Amino acid sequence: MSYKAPRGTTDILPEDAKKWQWVEETIKQVCNKFHYEEIRTPVFEHTEVFQRGVGNTTDIVQKEMYTFEDRGGRSITLRPEGTAPVVRSFVEHKLHGLANQPTKLYYFAEMFRYERPQKGRMRQLNQFGVEVLGSADPAVDAEVIDLAMTCYQEMGLTSLKLVINSLGDKESRENHRQALIAHFTPHKHELCSDCQTRLQNNPLRVLDCKQDRDHPAMQTAPSILDYLNEESEAYFEQVKDYLDNIGIPYEIDKNLVRGLDYYNHTAFEIMSEAEGFGAITTLAGGGRYNGLVEELGGPNTPGIGFAMGLERLLMALEAENQVIPVDRSLEAYVVAVDEQAQKEAVMLVSKLRKHGVQADKDYLGRKMKGQFKAADRYAAKYVLIIGENELEEQTITVKEMSTGEQATVAKDQIIDVMKEKCVGGREHE
Amino acid sequence: MSYKAPRGTTDILPEDAKKWQWVEETIKQVCNKFHYEEIRTPVFEHTEVFQRGVGNTTDIVQKEMYTFEDRGGRSITLRPEGTAPVVRSFVEHKLHGLANQPTKLYYFAEMFRYERPQKGRMRQLNQFGVEVLGSADPAVDAEVIDLAMTCYQEMGLTSLKLVINSLGDKESRENHRQALIAHFTPHKHELCSDCQTRLQNNPLRVLDCKQDRDHPAMQTAPSILDYLNEESEAYFEQVKDYLDNIGIPYEIDKNLVRGLDYYNHTAFEIMSEAEGFGAITTLAGGGRYNGLVEELGGPNTPGIGFAMGLERLLMALEAENQVIPVDRSLEAYVVAVDEQAQKEAVMLVSKLRKHGVQADKDYLGRKMKGQFKAADRYAAKYVLIIGENELEEQTITVKEMSTGEQATVAKDQIIDVMKEKCVGGREHE
Repeated sequence: MSYKAPRGTTDILPEDAKKWQWVEETIKQVCNKFHYEEIRTPVFEHTEVFQRGVGNTTDIVQKEMYTFEDRGGRSITLRPEGTAPVVRSFVEHKLHGLANQPTKLYYFAEMFRYERPQKGRMRQLNQFGVEVLGSADPAVDAEVIDLAMTCYQEMGLTSLKLVINSLGDKESRENHRQALIAHFTPHKHELCSDCQTRLQNNPLRVLDCKQDRDHPAMQTAPSILDYLNEESEAYFEQVKDYLDNIGIPYEIDKNLVRGLDYYNHTAFEIMSEAEGFGAITTLAGGGRYNGLVEELGGPNTPGIGFAMGLERLLMALEAENQVIPVDRSLEAYVVAVDEQAQKEAVMLVSKLRKHGVQADKDYLGRKMKGQFKAADRYAAKYVLIIGENELEEQTITVKEMSTGEQATVAKDQIIDVMKEKCVGGREHE
Repeated sequence: MSYKAPRGTTDILPEDAKKWQWVEETIKQVCNKFHYEEIRTPVFEHTEVFQRGVGNTTDIVQKEMYTFEDRGGRSITLRPEGTAPVVRSFVEHKLHGLANQPTKLYYFAEMFRYERPQKGRMRQLNQFGVEVLGSADPAVDAEVIDLAMTCYQEMGLTSLKLVINSLGDKESRENHRQALIAHFTPHKHELCSDCQTRLQNNPLRVLDCKQDRDHPAMQTAPSILDYLNEESEAYFEQVKDYLDNIGIPYEIDKNLVRGLDYYNHTAFEIMSEAEGFGAITTLAGGGRYNGLVEELGGPNTPGIGFAMGLERLLMALEAENQVIPVDRSLEAYVVAVDEQAQKEAVMLVSKLRKHGVQADKDYLGRKMKGQFKAADRYAAKYVLIIGENELEEQTITVKEMSTGEQATVAKDQIIDVMKEKCVGGREHE
């Protein structure tokens, strides 16, 4: 009998976990500089949160959710995206009532989408995301984009493309919607069945269709940018000005529409242009959603956010040959000659650790030679030897592996000596 | 319409998230000192992993699991505990084949148990846990306990009690099992219905029953410690010796049995003795499970681990009035007088952040006075002022809030000045 992780999910093993830790730590530091704070919501929500907060007409809600009944008969859904839960939490805890506004939040969370697994598309995936609630200032749109770009740049990514678009306000969208319906209706029967439904429910999303991408009517479809009213146009101009001012290059893609409902004004995606990155090049996507807080029962509150896939981020780092700085060495490995020495070693290792020195020893009854080999495999910086002489003389031999130098240290001095070598060294870095 | 987080789950809001970050960071550093590495497994597993890895006779598997069918008709269960998934992963990825053994792993993970929510018992809870696979050395048992205790102590907890017991090896357990059946059978009909079943399937767990705790037969029940064979007794002696040697006090509780099957030899729990901590005092529990790897399809491999609840840890910190060191200040807040100055402010804030200075500004169109108030609320260390004079003279006024001192800085010097004040300051700490 053998068991595997469920299809579309993976384990992150220690070798890789160190990379994840570095990615998360880097992102957290960027968030801290930008003065964003962490929020954590449960892994599952009442299903209505996503039906309402993502939109019933979206693929996510219609096809991809892990929805089930709990033992109390309530419909529960594993979080497929991060915005609706954060907004639900913002409303539930009345964060809009706090003095410090806007509320700038970030999260790290697993997402769950029942899709056909492929490279860069998992059923359980990890996202980092940001939501800013309570400001309709276009400077926030630029800030959020700045934050996303800074995360990538801090990790060393260079082959990035930012594309932006405006979906306008309600009025602009409605005018555009009518134009889209008028444009596509003559071609309705040439479109895929999903698009035939979309044309009725949410014609904007026809532009997003992967199947009908090459239909000639796509090229000539009316652009939202031609339907922006004055206010929406002014808003978009300001966002672009801010991006120019802070030095973030972008392209405008009038076909960029986001797969979720409730988006308005700014929409953006960040793509990897690294060679060999693969077919799915989107690293992050986001946009403004000024109606969403109200939709989930809160007061009229503007919002904007984005999410970035962390699996894709790691793929992009690899495609750009960016080396993640991971320290795989061990500070101190204690080698002991016999049973009595092993007892000493257990005490010594425990004490070293409590004084801030990373330490380990053998737990397999290996002979001295095997213990030295283990120290090598762990890339130990120092090997501390408790041999027969050392036992007798109450000393410990310290060998620095990079130089081969050895020194004999009195047992009651060893903690101080090792602290100086290891903890002291770290502080001076 | 209003939405709430599902019953038994909570949001961790920014105020609290900082505490969680500190707890996790502290634990990670302890794990690093102990030379343990992180592993991450998916949120759900095939249901059989828990049926087999936790045990079909346990309350968890029988009553508390979030089990559902995915869209492909497979039975999936949200992780109720951390050991079975880690062992499944260890077997699936053949980690036993790596040269560095034992494999020392730690994890942070959400667990899901469908229980009646109460203080300290949530349906989604957060655990930190450790698993060591591949060594039957009693020194590992002591090390794992040492690691758990060190985590608590590093956070400042002092009112802790460690209780240990031995469940012995297979032979000892079988002998004890027979004795338990003989002891309880005459009282069978006085026990709760669960215990009547347990008496047949897993009589050891009768000792663990909360309902029958006060039945007189409990007091006189045969103790496992009287049934340990020579090898098991020697093993337990060694574990106790190691604990003595590294200076960890403990009590022996012969009724300590763990709720999970497959435990053998060492079992332990760490309790809070803080006043006012509440009825459920267990902070962490663990033990040895030498048969589990084989049970999940791997080679015969000894194992030991523990899990600690992080919600309970935070409760214990509170009960002991331990203050979690959380920095709620902001390094730099930029105040701007008018639209033109705001544009400058957006650029300045963006630049400061990229040079490592934590910075923020207004996004609500507040007047100067309101901006200064916001700077106060954020506990800004420095307020950077772009007023009319500053705009004209291409300068920025830097006000240090703790002293009230002001200085005028040329615009092209401001980044260097602020880096020196903030980033430089941090490095010297």
